[in-house]
Amino acid sequence: MIIPRAIQNLIDAFQRLPGIGPKTAQRLTFYLLHVPQSELDRFAEALSGLKRNTKTCSICKNVDEIDPCSLCQDQSRDHSKICVVEDVLDVLAIERSSKHRGIYHVLHGRIDPLNNIGPEEIFINELLERAKEPVKEIILATNPDMEGEATAMYIRKKLQNSKNPKIKITRLAHGLPIGANIEYADERTLGEALDGRKEF
Amino acid sequence: MIIPRAIQNLIDAFQRLPGIGPKTAQRLTFYLLHVPQSELDRFAEALSGLKRNTKTCSICKNVDEIDPCSLCQDQSRDHSKICVVEDVLDVLAIERSSKHRGIYHVLHGRIDPLNNIGPEEIFINELLERAKEPVKEIILATNPDMEGEATAMYIRKKLQNSKNPKIKITRLAHGLPIGANIEYADERTLGEALDGRKEF
Repeated sequence: MIIPRAIQNLIDAFQRLPGIGPKTAQRLTFYLLHVPQSELDRFAEALSGLKRNTKTCSICKNVDEIDPCSLCQDQSRDHSKICVVEDVLDVLAIERSSKHRGIYHVLHGRIDPLNNIGPEEIFINELLERAKEPVKEIILATNPDMEGEATAMYIRKKLQNSKNPKIKITRLAHGLPIGANIEYADERTLGEALDGRKEF
Repeated sequence: MIIPRAIQNLIDAFQRLPGIGPKTAQRLTFYLLHVPQSELDRFAEALSGLKRNTKTCSICKNVDEIDPCSLCQDQSRDHSKICVVEDVLDVLAIERSSKHRGIYHVLHGRIDPLNNIGPEEIFINELLERAKEPVKEIILATNPDMEGEATAMYIRKKLQNSKNPKIKITRLAHGLPIGANIEYADERTLGEALDGRKEF
């Protein structure tokens, strides 16, 4: 039996998503066969409207319904502190912590030579453009992995050579995550936690 | 920051799929923000066309582009043998084995009282309707779990009381799957494998 075209099309579409293999794609597609047409249409609309109904903020490259985005327009926030993140999801995560009352800059990626992503492919130049008065602090919140560290180091070097060399450049603290188990912590995290220990 | 409506809509749609939680739904949605609009439109078309461009076979309830489905129309197949399965995916799995040259009957579910699914909710009456001359054998290929076994037993009883009591009713063999490890096999599977042992 050949799988009908309409079914195979959807299996293929699901399979192109990250982390979804052929079995999951089949399972999702056959599940949707039992769902009312109205719900399928709603799903389809959400998909094709995803980019049509959102804008990339011309200042911070965050994704929102308005441009400049609601965060950049918010005058109650501290516009002298820019938190640099790799992705829009990171903005949401940091907002949930309620600890950053400044604004953001979304790089939309990180420097990753193995995947042919250099500094020009992500919004680093736009960040350097923004890093002048009255900006006082740039918080580098790229991921604490190899590519994220490399991206942070690259940005630090560029900022130090820029027209605003007095700018404060900070990086998120490393250490044990809340709820972690010291026994299972890797040696680098534990090393960073010891180096960064605080008076108690 | 409030997540834009267009993004939240798609996160919600993904989250309604089985096995996709809030984190995965977010990840998939933000991944799609980086995909060209043309691909999003193709995905959306595949979704809304899934049910519009497929038909449920009026004979065996399989899903195909034509009605009756290509399997029911295939005269080279043995129409006296009906293999009863729970879902369309099971038809594909059995077809891959190339061991069944008969036709199918898709129940679209199984008897599952805990989820309010009784014999009337799935295509059992349609199967009993079909179980007359020239049908000689009904192969019950429901899943070997509690609900699947209950469904198979219910159908067997109904068939034995039907107008065609000479019909042969069979069930897929239980035993060790190929590549399995006896050490890790559960006791019921091992018991069935011993009961069903064959001359070697």
